[in-house]
Amino acid sequence: MKKRSLIVLLIIIGLYGTSTIFAGEKVHWGYSGHEGPEYWGKLNPKFSLCMEGKNQSPINLTGMIEGKLLPITVNYQTGGNEILNNGNTIQVNYMPGSTINVNGDQFELKQFHFHSPSENTIEGESYPMEAHFVHADKKGTLAVIALMFKSGDKNAELEKAWIQMPEKPGEKNVLPKHIDANILLPQNHDYYRFNGSLTTPPCSEGVWWLVIKQTTTASKEQIEQFSHTMHHPNNRPVQPVNARMILK
Amino acid sequence: MKKRSLIVLLIIIGLYGTSTIFAGEKVHWGYSGHEGPEYWGKLNPKFSLCMEGKNQSPINLTGMIEGKLLPITVNYQTGGNEILNNGNTIQVNYMPGSTINVNGDQFELKQFHFHSPSENTIEGESYPMEAHFVHADKKGTLAVIALMFKSGDKNAELEKAWIQMPEKPGEKNVLPKHIDANILLPQNHDYYRFNGSLTTPPCSEGVWWLVIKQTTTASKEQIEQFSHTMHHPNNRPVQPVNARMILK
Repeated sequence: MKKRSLIVLLIIIGLYGTSTIFAGEKVHWGYSGHEGPEYWGKLNPKFSLCMEGKNQSPINLTGMIEGKLLPITVNYQTGGNEILNNGNTIQVNYMPGSTINVNGDQFELKQFHFHSPSENTIEGESYPMEAHFVHADKKGTLAVIALMFKSGDKNAELEKAWIQMPEKPGEKNVLPKHIDANILLPQNHDYYRFNGSLTTPPCSEGVWWLVIKQTTTASKEQIEQFSHTMHHPNNRPVQPVNARMILK
Repeated sequence: MKKRSLIVLLIIIGLYGTSTIFAGEKVHWGYSGHEGPEYWGKLNPKFSLCMEGKNQSPINLTGMIEGKLLPITVNYQTGGNEILNNGNTIQVNYMPGSTINVNGDQFELKQFHFHSPSENTIEGESYPMEAHFVHADKKGTLAVIALMFKSGDKNAELEKAWIQMPEKPGEKNVLPKHIDANILLPQNHDYYRFNGSLTTPPCSEGVWWLVIKQTTTASKEQIEQFSHTMHHPNNRPVQPVNARMILK
């Protein structure tokens, strides 16, 4: 199987696990101790980019360059139909047929999942929760839309998933009320753009990152429900920007 | 020795050799046959980025995004004091003290060298020769200024180096007339910027690329003197852009 097909498959079956499978070999990783982010690159040779990559995510977005970024065209259907707990995140899988167009390239939404606190930071500011909407184009190139949550009004669309949140790792529930990712996004899709990686092993690079400038809200209880279910923070620390540009 | 210190050292002693030394181990590479660019990634595990990197150089510059790029401040002294032939390029080494400032970061000019035909292409256009001015900042981050040569008027500053060009690999000559890299650059320093890699093994990433928009000239004879001394083209083919942005 080609590497990019493998990556897309891993996304579909739930990449953000406590372990990543390569050629039948299961490698456990996590967010603390000797399985924590600072050790990811040493857990397996296939994870070497986690340690050696020069274009890793997340980052602190600062020193942004003003650029003529084309709008993201969002063509999402109501398609979030199952929710899973893989021990390191809560993920909502998405039915085929929902796409974004950005810079002439089309990417299909595969799933979205959450990190608390946020992984990316903006001008040094961390947010209580961040959603990652993971898309892939036909060649297997990934594009992630990142959305920051502040603590505030209860999020009704999120609640359709949250009431089915599996408490234990490995559990998956169907969603009787399908989620519309478009309702989760704010009206204004203005974004920061940079070039990065998966924020979890194998930390593969060549990923488009589109961070929505406008934040949204979830209630304190909704954020706590997520972090209590995880039992631990699930944010990788910010990585060096190196020679990259961050556009605004 | 730290990896970045090693890279800077390799640049200073002449990285662009027919071989790259890692821990005493010499790995031969070249531009044709089983040592050619398509095999670099397999010649040695340390060269894996040549094959697997998602942010490799050179590229075809196209789909540029208009962005507010800050000017490059060039503070070069007359410092090109020796010229060497390492079998895969002709390189002019530079004395310490010549710097550029870009985006608030200072980089020191270490050496410049040549490729024929050009490695980067602009909107699909190849140029007969390309110079790479290789700089490093204090942390070991590299910045390369790329300058395209068209065939035209004889280049007098280049000629100060060319009259001392060593014919055989491994040879090095002192330059009685030191070169001023500032005279090689055109007056207008407007540039394209992207994030890339070394164009030769180990193809290390995290390199700033600044491609000067204005071209310069060398005479047909000067370009031929270079390519005849090399005996072969020394341009790596263009690599996929992936999730990168090219700013103009």
